[in-house]
Amino acid sequence: MLKISSGNVCTPLGFRANGIHCGIRKNQSKRDLTLIVSDVPCTAAAVYTQNRVKGAPLLVTRDHLKDGRAQAVIVNSGNANTCNADGVEVAERMTEITAAQLGLKPEDVCVSSTGVIGKPLDITPIVNGLPSLIAGLARDQEHGEYASQGILTTDTRMKQIAVEFTVGGKTCHIGAIAKGSGMIHPNLATMLVFITTDCAITSEMLQKALSHDVQKTFNMTSVDGDTSTNDHVLLLANGLAGNEPITSEGPDFTAFMEALNTVTIHLCRMIAGDGEGATKMLECRVVGAKTDKDARIAAKAVITSSLVKTAMFGADANWGRVLCAIGYSGADVDVNKVELSFESKAGVIPVCVDGAGIPFSEDIAKKVLLEPEINILIDLHDGEGKATAWGCDLTYDYVKINGDYRT
Amino acid sequence: MLKISSGNVCTPLGFRANGIHCGIRKNQSKRDLTLIVSDVPCTAAAVYTQNRVKGAPLLVTRDHLKDGRAQAVIVNSGNANTCNADGVEVAERMTEITAAQLGLKPEDVCVSSTGVIGKPLDITPIVNGLPSLIAGLARDQEHGEYASQGILTTDTRMKQIAVEFTVGGKTCHIGAIAKGSGMIHPNLATMLVFITTDCAITSEMLQKALSHDVQKTFNMTSVDGDTSTNDHVLLLANGLAGNEPITSEGPDFTAFMEALNTVTIHLCRMIAGDGEGATKMLECRVVGAKTDKDARIAAKAVITSSLVKTAMFGADANWGRVLCAIGYSGADVDVNKVELSFESKAGVIPVCVDGAGIPFSEDIAKKVLLEPEINILIDLHDGEGKATAWGCDLTYDYVKINGDYRT
Repeated sequence: MLKISSGNVCTPLGFRANGIHCGIRKNQSKRDLTLIVSDVPCTAAAVYTQNRVKGAPLLVTRDHLKDGRAQAVIVNSGNANTCNADGVEVAERMTEITAAQLGLKPEDVCVSSTGVIGKPLDITPIVNGLPSLIAGLARDQEHGEYASQGILTTDTRMKQIAVEFTVGGKTCHIGAIAKGSGMIHPNLATMLVFITTDCAITSEMLQKALSHDVQKTFNMTSVDGDTSTNDHVLLLANGLAGNEPITSEGPDFTAFMEALNTVTIHLCRMIAGDGEGATKMLECRVVGAKTDKDARIAAKAVITSSLVKTAMFGADANWGRVLCAIGYSGADVDVNKVELSFESKAGVIPVCVDGAGIPFSEDIAKKVLLEPEINILIDLHDGEGKATAWGCDLTYDYVKINGDYRT
Repeated sequence: MLKISSGNVCTPLGFRANGIHCGIRKNQSKRDLTLIVSDVPCTAAAVYTQNRVKGAPLLVTRDHLKDGRAQAVIVNSGNANTCNADGVEVAERMTEITAAQLGLKPEDVCVSSTGVIGKPLDITPIVNGLPSLIAGLARDQEHGEYASQGILTTDTRMKQIAVEFTVGGKTCHIGAIAKGSGMIHPNLATMLVFITTDCAITSEMLQKALSHDVQKTFNMTSVDGDTSTNDHVLLLANGLAGNEPITSEGPDFTAFMEALNTVTIHLCRMIAGDGEGATKMLECRVVGAKTDKDARIAAKAVITSSLVKTAMFGADANWGRVLCAIGYSGADVDVNKVELSFESKAGVIPVCVDGAGIPFSEDIAKKVLLEPEINILIDLHDGEGKATAWGCDLTYDYVKINGDYRT
């Protein structure tokens, strides 16, 4: 029913995009300015970082989305426009000049920035680059990829995906681009996600879908446990698929949620796998918890433990660290019931039953853990709660990327 | 009034100690069995890891301390005796054989282990080594150092300290040894602290002093955010100083608390500075918080942030990461009032005022941050709350130590 493709924000009907180098980043081969525009007005939903320090663009976008509607988003990389005295002013100005040239109201333009913080953002390169950015807007895979490239910093690869699904007999699409954890200058890792859909859905149901989804997806993803000041996920729905608009819960909403969840889980895996310096993607699946919440707390503790992350880097089946993380997580677990296995394409190896170690082959364990995608499988044997979390290993390169002098 | 010395657990009157290599660790040049004994019964207090997974020795020690009294502690390194089916049985046996040869009751012997978890602890080398361990007990600096060495794993240096103070006209001493974060095989970092004193004090007041103290000292120290299964602090008081026993709060208790706090803060700095792979000790001092609790939450978030830790490794004045950590810490702060400076022996450099960056010399900042001890000074300008936390940088060697194969 649900078809996954390598599309992006241009896959849904009526969305054009582009990305160019305008000069915020020094490296001229790197795009640093992205624009996504819908041909018609969209309902819009967003979730923002819970950090008390919020980037100025987030404050502006939040304000512009008060009416649940938007039609375009302008994004720059290379400077987060955060902790600057004139931040909000510059972010507002970005929406104003973009709106003027697109024939929109500033309130229908969202704005987003990622990069170094505490450095004033010079708007000149944006002003100069905007005409060619807009002139180059197109609805095809290539221009969606330009947009995808324009929001990256030191990400090593683009993160994009699209799905096709059916609502009320009409074919609908969701497309997305994301940036994960990387930076020009070592700085705050930022997660930005832009999702488009041609499915017709009210802004209330769109926000409901997104808010519900992120609890089980982006909020369960961690590279280094530091919550950025600029993280956000923006979802635009322009209704061009022609389906009867989704206005309440029911089979249509369920179909939309399923499609959205497919997109976001793929993005989480891509973001985790391309975490700063990462060589491995880690997926921790907890089942048998007292509640889903306990499962989430335990899974997230495992995935964020520096000791688990370094062990995975070393392909070391050091299961005691996983048990330790479960123990200190705060989840309500009976540690004497915990069952634990490591799994990858190379096989599965059980290492702990009833909270105590069992004999296992270190050779087989090493083979399992040398794969680039590792599943940490935990059964708490204490109920029906379950959760999945995504992360990555902690490597020399993480230290290198973040320990280098900015100068 | 209060004199600090380089003494250890043998500095207070009536405490003998020793440490030998008995064969738990493969490296014969490393001591792996430690014994501390008081000539007379002691009041005793302890605090234990909050991890739900608790090492078997902790369970036994907790049981033996129910009456608030103890006279000896036997400690091995090289194996944590945790997550083993026969763990409690082995730990009990360790106290029994030690008690028998010392002429004590097993209930007056505490037991502690650190090292790899999930690997059964063979008691044979301990049985064989115990007679010579006991025969070599002595009350001098050298034997206290043997004891100090016997509890280390990959710590790069001993951690010991003593202080002299006065209670009711009598000279009293507190001495301590500690192990921080290191391991033979990459495994759980464990913190063990053994403190002796000849001050006369009831077990109730001793526990009160210790429980109060650890909130502001050991609980404010972090190497990698992972809470071990075996952490604990044990405090023995034998009363041989001859002071009128401390039975309630008052000037005597205050003097004891001050002496204890001097010891524990020194140990925290030593443990943080010798964190796994660390090249720098970090001290984060928060003032001007709404409450002490807010200050503690903020200080601890800064000291545990991977991004702050890597920046300090790189001597990079990337203050935005400090602000970011304060922002996501959960502390009740007004981010627009935050003032931030970095300080070391090389000087002090203010980098942020009113939550926004101020111009500063990168050259001077680098000089300040190249020192081995860095203070991160934060004024929240929002009240009278304050707290200090200790940590270390995150380095290539941390990844190396913890990412190596166990095999």
